[in-house]
Amino acid sequence: MEKDKVRKVIPAKDGRKIPRKTECYEEENNSVKRKVYMDYNATTPLALEVIQTVTEAMQEAWGNPSSTYKAGRKAKETISRARESLARMVGGQPEDIIFTSGGTEANNLIIHTALRCFRESWVLGENGPGEKHSKPQGATPHFVTSSVEHDSVRLPLEHLVRENMAEATFVPVSKVTGQAEVDDIIGAVRPTTCLVSIMLANNETGVIMPIPELCQRIRILNQKRTASGMPKILVHTDAAQMIGKGRVDVEDLGVDYLTVVGHKFYAPRIGALYVRGPGVATPLHPMLFGGGQERNFRPGTENTPMIAGLGKAAELVNKTCEVYEAHMQEVRDYLEARLEAVFGKQKIHFNSRFSGSRRLCNTCNFSILGSGLQGHKVLSCCKTLLASVGAACHSEKGDNQPSSILLSCGIPYDVAQNALRLSVGRDTTHRDVDLVVDDLKEAVAQLEQSSTPLT
Amino acid sequence: MEKDKVRKVIPAKDGRKIPRKTECYEEENNSVKRKVYMDYNATTPLALEVIQTVTEAMQEAWGNPSSTYKAGRKAKETISRARESLARMVGGQPEDIIFTSGGTEANNLIIHTALRCFRESWVLGENGPGEKHSKPQGATPHFVTSSVEHDSVRLPLEHLVRENMAEATFVPVSKVTGQAEVDDIIGAVRPTTCLVSIMLANNETGVIMPIPELCQRIRILNQKRTASGMPKILVHTDAAQMIGKGRVDVEDLGVDYLTVVGHKFYAPRIGALYVRGPGVATPLHPMLFGGGQERNFRPGTENTPMIAGLGKAAELVNKTCEVYEAHMQEVRDYLEARLEAVFGKQKIHFNSRFSGSRRLCNTCNFSILGSGLQGHKVLSCCKTLLASVGAACHSEKGDNQPSSILLSCGIPYDVAQNALRLSVGRDTTHRDVDLVVDDLKEAVAQLEQSSTPLT
Ligand SMILES: Cc1ncc(COP(=O)(O)O)c(C=O)c1O
Ligand SMILES: Cc1ncc(COP(=O)(O)O)c(C=O)c1O
Repeated sequence: MEKDKVRKVIPAKDGRKIPRKTECYEEENNSVKRKVYMDYNATTPLALEVIQTVTEAMQEAWGNPSSTYKAGRKAKETISRARESLARMVGGQPEDIIFTSGGTEANNLIIHTALRCFRESWVLGENGPGEKHSKPQGATPHFVTSSVEHDSVRLPLEHLVRENMAEATFVPVSKVTGQAEVDDIIGAVRPTTCLVSIMLANNETGVIMPIPELCQRIRILNQKRTASGMPKILVHTDAAQMIGKGRVDVEDLGVDYLTVVGHKFYAPRIGALYVRGPGVATPLHPMLFGGGQERNFRPGTENTPMIAGLGKAAELVNKTCEVYEAHMQEVRDYLEARLEAVFGKQKIHFNSRFSGSRRLCNTCNFSILGSGLQGHKVLSCCKTLLASVGAACHSEKGDNQPSSILLSCGIPYDVAQNALRLSVGRDTTHRDVDLVVDDLKEAVAQLEQSSTPLT
Repeated sequence: MEKDKVRKVIPAKDGRKIPRKTECYEEENNSVKRKVYMDYNATTPLALEVIQTVTEAMQEAWGNPSSTYKAGRKAKETISRARESLARMVGGQPEDIIFTSGGTEANNLIIHTALRCFRESWVLGENGPGEKHSKPQGATPHFVTSSVEHDSVRLPLEHLVRENMAEATFVPVSKVTGQAEVDDIIGAVRPTTCLVSIMLANNETGVIMPIPELCQRIRILNQKRTASGMPKILVHTDAAQMIGKGRVDVEDLGVDYLTVVGHKFYAPRIGALYVRGPGVATPLHPMLFGGGQERNFRPGTENTPMIAGLGKAAELVNKTCEVYEAHMQEVRDYLEARLEAVFGKQKIHFNSRFSGSRRLCNTCNFSILGSGLQGHKVLSCCKTLLASVGAACHSEKGDNQPSSILLSCGIPYDVAQNALRLSVGRDTTHRDVDLVVDDLKEAVAQLEQSSTPLT
């Protein structure tokens, strides 16, 4: 394997308790170039402690967790410990945590659950348990979500709508706050609404959504519903981008379901779902059937090493999240100050500074204004910066359309076209920022030069 | 982490090219006891090369495979290489391989696909594409499977039957051969049959099913079906237990789908699905919707390190499978010979020696006859042997019922109650066998002694 990424353990420049530094190098034309990774919202490297935990578990906890002898029991204990760390991280109970293969599966599982739940409650409510498939026209479950959700929420809903199996309202975000507003969400609720799914923080803008207020309002609606014998509205939040970047507590939030995605917080590529009392207080209907693992909610022999790694990453968050957060915020703010200083306030538009809403500590979405400075062009001229114009899963489409998320936040088309999403990590330094800003300056100069003779 | 498993790199006793040895030790009452693991059908340890590959990929291929800069491209290349190794392992094309979270997901995905496929072909055939949900009574898709499938095939089918969404025939295996017989399977086919799913080798008995003959017969049925405008019957085989223990070639087999389960062949806890030209020659309907990964057939940010490890394990199989197989068979035969020699032919019943069928090279399912010698009791008296009475995912139920698989193969109830499943691995030695047989002898003596005074 060619060694184009080198990891060095060096103390962070500014003396903070940032344990270590992932430096990136790439071979280019026979010389090794220093790169600066600022795409931590797309994915993070694994924490060194996590790599170590996964490797140890591969060596020592390889038994089948269902086997009753010690090799199995040990794997089972490893999983239990990870479950406890995850529960502590989100403020729930260990039995509320279900391990999944990732965020996509977790989000799909919740939508599947709500759909089934609607069907069952409807059937029981009107025809009694015997007549399961006699549902008349019109009783279609309704979902409420926002216009800026990740594809793993948007697409399963669009699929169900296409199949006439559900209706969905994609509440547009406010052009003032960048948030899906509580009033708008509540206004979209219908008697047939079975699930409200709103992400905790957006992956492109970093805007944090008003989930606690939303849950309070839904609680009031649910009291009325329960009184009149109607099933409750369930509430889900996709916390993929928030974990490790800010406090996440299911009690404060008030949600029924919360999605955890490992590779956004220095953990392996698996995920977990928080469910408030799965199968007891809150329904959870499996999509898969098999060997009974995860209490039948998610069967399949457990991926012990990756679960152990997820647990270790959760432990790191539990111990150090405030330090991470303060560091990333400070570095991100420094980045924004440098961008303004170097390009001038007039030439920079920050696409995620909305009034009246909070945003993720690490995310900086901005456009360098001017013709010919489309985000993808700027990035392709950069020699040091590794970043993206939006969600990673869209970057391959190659259509170079501006981000639909930004457009939906009210960013004008030509500004959105120039957008860059930079997201910093636990060990990004001021020096990294300086390198990146210089790099951007040169890239922009190059693009402007090459376009001048033509005008 | 307490070190109760120690890995030593030592040459195999009998001089074969078995690369290295996983020795098991467990701490018991303050002393360290040598254990012999003979439950390789439940799960295998990871090959050392696989651990190394996963660890390297965690360090160096952590980028998001959808990112267009080098860190992403590198992850993508890692995945491509693994896909090629997998394809080579099963005799298919790289584009025929879809990575999944495991065997359970792969098996469920095929059942889901067949269900959707039936619905679509039926709708298109009779009402035209517009009238999707106007299906009348009676047009229920029918599945054919065997009575000895893994829970990840049996339970999703039972679920669909319970929900009135499908009909299923569980073809009983022959009490003579232990196989699901081709004539019986073909006999179970109806005009509404959409999928035939028969495992390649059974996990408890090791009996190898007649898949090539089955596929030939279904091909003839399908020719008639196609001629009369009916949709084809799809054929799936769960090859979880066969990979790494014998030749697996999708061309020889003739199947449309084949399930690969990493942790049965020294690979990590993920899986893959072979599909003969997915979406083109053979339908594949995703269960999950999201960021477009795996050509939308199975979205979710790819688990690059584990995929790399799966690829490495496939490479090992491609290079060394015949050596592994010859070694395991020789050791398993030695085990059976020793059991007969020590307990006497009259006291040992081999539960998977059927006439007219082949079985896995590594599996020995036997009962030590006599009252009070139930499998779980014998195992709990063993000091060295780590094995099971059947599938790992049943071992926690604690009901101590005899294996339904064995009963369904015609093993009498009281013999099945005493069954032990021993499965050897790539580095099991004659010395291990000797230790295990001694251990069993002592365990049986102990149980017989303790029961004698009562009679
Ligand atoms: C907000 C959000 N939700 C869900 C996901 C899906 O996670 P995965 O692709 O790992 O399944 C991501 C990241 O990819 C994300 O940013
Ligand atoms: C025959 C067979 N199929 C499928 C599986 C399922 O694999 P997993 O539990 O890893 O999803 C197993 C093993 O557990 C098996 O033995």
